[in-house]
Amino acid sequence: MRLRNLKNRDEIVMNCSFLLDDPKKYKGKFCELFGNNNPINLEIGMGKGDFIYNMAKTYPDINFIGVEKYANVLARAIVKMDKVLPNLYIMNYDAIKLGEVFEHEIDTIYLNFSDPWPKKRHARRRLTSEDFLRVYDDLFVGRKRIVQKTDNIDLFSYSLVTLSNYGYVFNDVSLDLHNSDRFNIETEYETKFSNLGYKINYLEATKK
Amino acid sequence: MRLRNLKNRDEIVMNCSFLLDDPKKYKGKFCELFGNNNPINLEIGMGKGDFIYNMAKTYPDINFIGVEKYANVLARAIVKMDKVLPNLYIMNYDAIKLGEVFEHEIDTIYLNFSDPWPKKRHARRRLTSEDFLRVYDDLFVGRKRIVQKTDNIDLFSYSLVTLSNYGYVFNDVSLDLHNSDRFNIETEYETKFSNLGYKINYLEATKK
Repeated sequence: MRLRNLKNRDEIVMNCSFLLDDPKKYKGKFCELFGNNNPINLEIGMGKGDFIYNMAKTYPDINFIGVEKYANVLARAIVKMDKVLPNLYIMNYDAIKLGEVFEHEIDTIYLNFSDPWPKKRHARRRLTSEDFLRVYDDLFVGRKRIVQKTDNIDLFSYSLVTLSNYGYVFNDVSLDLHNSDRFNIETEYETKFSNLGYKINYLEATKK
Repeated sequence: MRLRNLKNRDEIVMNCSFLLDDPKKYKGKFCELFGNNNPINLEIGMGKGDFIYNMAKTYPDINFIGVEKYANVLARAIVKMDKVLPNLYIMNYDAIKLGEVFEHEIDTIYLNFSDPWPKKRHARRRLTSEDFLRVYDDLFVGRKRIVQKTDNIDLFSYSLVTLSNYGYVFNDVSLDLHNSDRFNIETEYETKFSNLGYKINYLEATKK
């Protein structure tokens, strides 16, 4: 997601108490950062943060870390989060390098409304390409679990194929999440596009 | 699919030269019936037969067998087929009993616009329930291959989950087949509902 730059972006990011400015130093010891052994869930591409912030509020016994590539998007997320939560940290990081940060300590990865990279020659940049799935392998502790939401049917079809070929099995799929009875915390993008009539696709996949 | 009965239904079915009235007798020797060793593809729930008839015309080097549970639907299909094709047979049979008819001789199973059986308590009647997948196991020769089309998003989601949990891997998925560049032969139902604006979901899955 691209947004206009906030003027005081650097200041906002620097002064944020729950932003990890050097996340690599917690590698293998994120449970120490959180001070407990609760599962750690990651959202890659957290955007303006509605999803991860509300997830962290809803599930105090799960730890959450939001990853966002673009600092100006992260600054907007920080501005929106009105309370510091003990189970939420965020970081400005490139997903393809997450192996530098985590070592078999993640329970679930959330991919919400990721960039669909519609051109075939950009397919490897999609967050469910084999390149990324290989990176995720080393982040997970125990069984691997990915939850994806998107309104983009091409990205969704692509994910069904790549995840399936990489050994993931689908536990749950919906092609119209908002007309199902699943509990769902929305992203800001999701609320907007769902209101415009777009259907939200959802999958939950695990791999041993 | 339910249709009003044709008055001369029994006569039409009885006089059809490419209808197998006792298909069990070919069990294990369908290649003899066709007189060649070409792959045999099955459509379960062939309805009025547009798909299988046009597939057989398009692919003369593949053998096709259409299965339909309802004799009056089959009678309508027969009336529509204006030419006898050497690579096409049809039969009036219940899918759950197909293990009586075939023994490791099928290459691909097509499931087009199958009854979605929307109620949860009827889930086992869906043609991609585990009960049916278990029946299909013994029909296939070599790798198992299922191709499904449906406009019903709940049936499609269900199939993605059941196939995946049964060991199938998705080679191709589309949530809008008619707006993709895949070659596609339509069923009569598909043409009608696609014209009404319904999106056609498509999957191709294989299992070793």
